[in-house]
Amino acid sequence: MRAARYHGVGDIRFEDIAEPTVGPGQVKVRVHFNGLCGSDLHEYFHAPMMAPTAPHPLTGVSVPVVLGHEFSGEIVEIGPAVDQLSVGDTVAVEPTVNCRQCVACRAGSYNLCSTIAAVGYSWAGGGGLGQYAVVDADHAYRLPPGMSTREGALIEPLAVALHAVHRGEVPPGSTVAVHGAGPIGIGVFLTLRAHGIDDIAVIEPSAARRAAIEAVGATNVIDPSNADVVAELRARTNGDGVSRSFDTAGVPATFLNAVRSTASHGRVVVVAVHQRPVDFNPTEILFSECEIVGSIAYCDDYPEAIDLMARGAYPIESWVKTIAFGDLISDGLEPLRDQKAIKVLVDMNAVD
Amino acid sequence: MRAARYHGVGDIRFEDIAEPTVGPGQVKVRVHFNGLCGSDLHEYFHAPMMAPTAPHPLTGVSVPVVLGHEFSGEIVEIGPAVDQLSVGDTVAVEPTVNCRQCVACRAGSYNLCSTIAAVGYSWAGGGGLGQYAVVDADHAYRLPPGMSTREGALIEPLAVALHAVHRGEVPPGSTVAVHGAGPIGIGVFLTLRAHGIDDIAVIEPSAARRAAIEAVGATNVIDPSNADVVAELRARTNGDGVSRSFDTAGVPATFLNAVRSTASHGRVVVVAVHQRPVDFNPTEILFSECEIVGSIAYCDDYPEAIDLMARGAYPIESWVKTIAFGDLISDGLEPLRDQKAIKVLVDMNAVD
Repeated sequence: MRAARYHGVGDIRFEDIAEPTVGPGQVKVRVHFNGLCGSDLHEYFHAPMMAPTAPHPLTGVSVPVVLGHEFSGEIVEIGPAVDQLSVGDTVAVEPTVNCRQCVACRAGSYNLCSTIAAVGYSWAGGGGLGQYAVVDADHAYRLPPGMSTREGALIEPLAVALHAVHRGEVPPGSTVAVHGAGPIGIGVFLTLRAHGIDDIAVIEPSAARRAAIEAVGATNVIDPSNADVVAELRARTNGDGVSRSFDTAGVPATFLNAVRSTASHGRVVVVAVHQRPVDFNPTEILFSECEIVGSIAYCDDYPEAIDLMARGAYPIESWVKTIAFGDLISDGLEPLRDQKAIKVLVDMNAVD
Repeated sequence: MRAARYHGVGDIRFEDIAEPTVGPGQVKVRVHFNGLCGSDLHEYFHAPMMAPTAPHPLTGVSVPVVLGHEFSGEIVEIGPAVDQLSVGDTVAVEPTVNCRQCVACRAGSYNLCSTIAAVGYSWAGGGGLGQYAVVDADHAYRLPPGMSTREGALIEPLAVALHAVHRGEVPPGSTVAVHGAGPIGIGVFLTLRAHGIDDIAVIEPSAARRAAIEAVGATNVIDPSNADVVAELRARTNGDGVSRSFDTAGVPATFLNAVRSTASHGRVVVVAVHQRPVDFNPTEILFSECEIVGSIAYCDDYPEAIDLMARGAYPIESWVKTIAFGDLISDGLEPLRDQKAIKVLVDMNAVD
């Protein structure tokens, strides 16, 4: 089969490799669409972070690896001891691979597994940028009737956003600020709205991203290039600040603006990897008794994300574009790096 | 009456001033003991922070002000409309003064009042470093029989520690690390123990403070000068990290060590003012989904603090020394600044 394999920084090769073989409890998926993500960019342009350069402690896998961890497809083969799925089912794949033994896994928080691995980075069964991938059957979620596999490939980043909203513990009637309108910011906005939250401000410097989130219904969008974000958010809330904030961008300004514009006993959710440290004085959360919480990946969030997609909560047209497999770098990774695209799906249907 | 008044940095004057007069709902207290606190040091040695140099928005008070916000005494006069207290009662004073109108006050979180003032900094009725102070009757808590006013003067910092433990939401069986063994660190340790928490590590570089907290029962005390604190705390918890951490010292090392040694879904409580920013990468709480929370002062914590003191939970001999009023600077503020004392009470009984 054809696959895009990551060998190291700047080195993704289109190769012919053997199809992965299905084992007990596993299914083989013919990939339809695979989304590209910030961590893919990091691996390709900066340094391997998720792709192991030495054998992964849980899976033994190391580079080269088939990339792609946000994908959907169609089941083409069922391994022994799989009864909940059938050949022909379309599925969204949850790529986390966890040890099922560590304290976090035993507590049910498999996203915090101490030796976590991932399909598309550190998994012997391949990833979404190969024509076929083999995954554990309990990581393949059947798509409901009427849901396209294009939508299905977006369940992964939307589950990230949904998990962040869960971590935010957002009460009804909350005022919320979403810092950043990339794919996760858009997902957080749409999830909040689906959860009945109306008062949502979005802060985003890119005109294209502002337009994209306005196209899905955001009416309260601030360009931080022209505004004092903290003063603006406080002014909109009678000086109190918003009750929940989401840092979906991972730069010092989004983190500090989030902390400084959050109300007493409010909650700031960090759902972005920060490339560099922030000059942060913890006293800033003393007099407000704010909480700052981390949110990573998802944990039992796929069913709700699929349900929200099925109910129309996640319109995708304004922010998602689709490219051909062969154009992965020129039409995918490079424009994403240059902020000339918001979300890119690679169409794996026509690969041969 | 005699009082120590703060005029500005390096300028505390022993003066004869008029006794404050009691109004409706207020009581007049003859001060017995007054504790000195880190914020007193900050005012005197660095800059006015709590003492207003312009009229305080809530109380109209500005410097010079009578210092002292951790005090106990005996009621000598009762104003109109006070029925819960009597002349002769000994009391611990809760010094926060709040507006009772802002969002935080209306939510019951008076410690987060947007225009908060304090007896001993921004209050017309004086403070604990005057012979008499007038305070609102609902801020004077009667001491139970057998409790000395020396103990009573320590209720304020112990309530700070108790509030921090409440903010930590510490479940039974938790492993905890207390970073810093100053008065708040000691109070946090003693409160945790009173709440049934046994597995408490304390991290403190000063030999005198280590000895003081060992004298009240800490058995698991780490000198960070000789240890990799994060590695040590992780080693003691099978690699998982502690479930709750308290930064009671407010320096970059205590904050970062607390964050880095806290387990998945753990909670870090910051209960210290940080003088300078920390170089902090928020990604550090991403993969653990930790929570970092602020804790300031106290809010409805005095009754429990008094109860714990009455039950013997707060032994004070190993870490508290008492000085004469006239020696406030030479035996109080200066040795505290130089870390030659842990906690100092000023004896106001013999002032004349």
